[in-house]
Amino acid sequence: MTKEGHINFFFKPQSIALIGASPNPERLSYTILENLLKMGFQGKIYPVNPGYREIRGLKCYSTPGEINDRIDIAIFAVQASTVLEILNGPVENIKGVIIVSSGFREVGPEGKEMEVRLKEILEKKEIRAMGPNCLGIYDTISNVDTFFISSDKVERPARNGVSVLTQSGSFAAMIMDEMANEGAGVARVVSYGNKVDVDESDCLEFLAGDEATKAVALYIESVGNGRRFLAAASGCVQKKPVVALKVGKREPGARAASSHTGAVSGRYEAYEAAFRKAGIIEVASYEELKDACKVLNRYPLAEGKRVLIITDGGGIGISIADACEEAGLKVPEIASEAVRKLKKKLPAFASVRNPVDLTGSVRDEHYIVALQEVFREGYDLAIVSLLWGPPLLTPRVAEKIRDFADSCGKPILICSPGGKFSREAASLFTAVGIPVFFTPDSAVRAATVLCGGKK
Amino acid sequence: MTKEGHINFFFKPQSIALIGASPNPERLSYTILENLLKMGFQGKIYPVNPGYREIRGLKCYSTPGEINDRIDIAIFAVQASTVLEILNGPVENIKGVIIVSSGFREVGPEGKEMEVRLKEILEKKEIRAMGPNCLGIYDTISNVDTFFISSDKVERPARNGVSVLTQSGSFAAMIMDEMANEGAGVARVVSYGNKVDVDESDCLEFLAGDEATKAVALYIESVGNGRRFLAAASGCVQKKPVVALKVGKREPGARAASSHTGAVSGRYEAYEAAFRKAGIIEVASYEELKDACKVLNRYPLAEGKRVLIITDGGGIGISIADACEEAGLKVPEIASEAVRKLKKKLPAFASVRNPVDLTGSVRDEHYIVALQEVFREGYDLAIVSLLWGPPLLTPRVAEKIRDFADSCGKPILICSPGGKFSREAASLFTAVGIPVFFTPDSAVRAATVLCGGKK
Repeated sequence: MTKEGHINFFFKPQSIALIGASPNPERLSYTILENLLKMGFQGKIYPVNPGYREIRGLKCYSTPGEINDRIDIAIFAVQASTVLEILNGPVENIKGVIIVSSGFREVGPEGKEMEVRLKEILEKKEIRAMGPNCLGIYDTISNVDTFFISSDKVERPARNGVSVLTQSGSFAAMIMDEMANEGAGVARVVSYGNKVDVDESDCLEFLAGDEATKAVALYIESVGNGRRFLAAASGCVQKKPVVALKVGKREPGARAASSHTGAVSGRYEAYEAAFRKAGIIEVASYEELKDACKVLNRYPLAEGKRVLIITDGGGIGISIADACEEAGLKVPEIASEAVRKLKKKLPAFASVRNPVDLTGSVRDEHYIVALQEVFREGYDLAIVSLLWGPPLLTPRVAEKIRDFADSCGKPILICSPGGKFSREAASLFTAVGIPVFFTPDSAVRAATVLCGGKK
Repeated sequence: MTKEGHINFFFKPQSIALIGASPNPERLSYTILENLLKMGFQGKIYPVNPGYREIRGLKCYSTPGEINDRIDIAIFAVQASTVLEILNGPVENIKGVIIVSSGFREVGPEGKEMEVRLKEILEKKEIRAMGPNCLGIYDTISNVDTFFISSDKVERPARNGVSVLTQSGSFAAMIMDEMANEGAGVARVVSYGNKVDVDESDCLEFLAGDEATKAVALYIESVGNGRRFLAAASGCVQKKPVVALKVGKREPGARAASSHTGAVSGRYEAYEAAFRKAGIIEVASYEELKDACKVLNRYPLAEGKRVLIITDGGGIGISIADACEEAGLKVPEIASEAVRKLKKKLPAFASVRNPVDLTGSVRDEHYIVALQEVFREGYDLAIVSLLWGPPLLTPRVAEKIRDFADSCGKPILICSPGGKFSREAASLFTAVGIPVFFTPDSAVRAATVLCGGKK
């Protein structure tokens, strides 16, 4: 199998072996098995550990070679040296491995030497590999979860359309936890760490053709083969939006990346150019990437950059308008014909401009009236901001806006800033599938991605 | 009393009258009385409404003139026209008013005309005024809360050191709600709306000498008298840090500001220059202002821009380092002497550079060792990032870091990204008074403010 061979089986495995399985809750492998079982993986699970005959009701094997079945994924949760030992033994039935173990290239010369040997063995035995020094796969389609972090500590997001590719495991954990906490989902998350074999290009090739994936989010410390990446990314962009965050842009970050996954970051400008060439939407920060994921779960890219803002809090409308202009989006005035109509249908207190300010006297239907009269023509995207202080605003506004969003076919983003009460009210939108953002800045970051990125 | 007369009595009132008080929960005044009582205001409270003889056990008066006491603050929660009527009557015992009513300049020519008359009456009768079209005062020192939004909907932050000045009521509500939700406090919040009299300059003059206020955060749509603002702001900056967010920077936002509080935004560049001249730290977004408030509650400005980053998640360390460099902060390498010492005291898996990566094998004491050996020399501020996945990390780390922070006297910011579990763990830091940020970007925004703002 060549480097370009497909890696599809990682995302629809029939059988998973867990090398180093353990009944000891302090071991990483214990958590991995726990998560695999919790996730409801429907294929075969084979624990492997010469010290046990059974773990959690599953027959335990001494070596992977002993398993009389093809192993699609063998998860290695053992010491770095043991990984090499086992792979040097009989592993003909293993198709792919996920090596979560650290202690390779990221720790210095000795580890690097081990990683070189690992690569040789894998190539010789034609085994595809993710890692080492990674978390592996969290997949809401195939119900695979190889992450060695308890779901008590890092929540798992529900099923949705965005797939996330990342070198950094902590980044994967952070974004999954926050997405889950904000009611957002994911399709597949892949943390490939040191990338001894499988890298972002392999994954992009797979995700391009993956129907479950509506959009792709990339966290990049380094890219090995630039030309291949450009081809894979361009191919993927033809099919679905791809957003990327490049980290290790400047010297201190680059230094850290090298100790982290052994990555050589290279000149940032080269990445910037490659992203542009491939049609990737570049984001500048973790928060932008997270906001991008949330919004791309629900909406395809917008057709233009003209944003309609509707709010019940004047100051927030102004902040949203400022942030839009700052990001290169347009906030065009409402056409005079629409203003005339709207003035008839909205009470006198409302400010009929863009941003439309429905003020604290707002009622649910005012939001719908404003959307109906203004959004259909002249705008590509709407940001609808709700403060929940106004006494006549009710939870029913969420379904009403959802119904309108369904009928109009253009993206509508909700901004619901504030604390406990607002978050709960905001969850009404999440429940009907409309993405919610908790600050003006966050809503505009998401809108900017939908409009194809900053100016 | 001249325009420059002091407004101190607004912040230490002995007596408050509520014009338009009502036992009807649907009225704004009901919520105001509710909040005043809840807040535990220790002075006299006089409900005023000719329709009632008693409200919530308090004697109700027909007119303010009937009250046989000096009124420090009369809150007007009646229609715009009624405000004028009452002020035209006998109000000799009223020192200051807070007019929460809207329907003035922000609604057009007719309202503007009313506001002109309001101004004339106030000047003639020598009554100081906040508003109209505002929320008034939320004050954790004098226990005054004139906001007409229920604390069920907008949480009230606890007592702390930052005071917030804002034209926009919705902005005040949003930031208070979020601060409370993130465990952060405030000293005094003033929402002065249309600024018929009291404005940011009056408030800055008061806050400059206010011992309860450690720092000031400004939300500005417009400034009327630029020269006076410059003097007041410069005076305040001599005493404590002042941060400002200018909104209505670009055309659509400026348009909205004019319908909002009748503000004429003016050229943004003029504000930028004024901020720089006064020594105000300008922030670019709502999120930056919020992060500034959180950090200025605890720390004075840093002495330089050299940031030490300590993390247990490599990817997050890199993101923090990148964001620091982007904002013009420095992330200098650790001196070789310190590296040598640190290598002896930290396990081999740790990466001893800046960012220091303690990895998923971290124990509580590793954070302290890294701070002790490295932070004392060569750095002005530390960002300590904790992912809570690592099995050996315990809640006790919060107090240990607090103890170190107390002893070293330099700012230490916590970054604790993630969802439910992380937020709960993060609250350990909040409980011991250390500010916590929930994304790498947010921690760096706060650090940037402490270091005097962007490059």
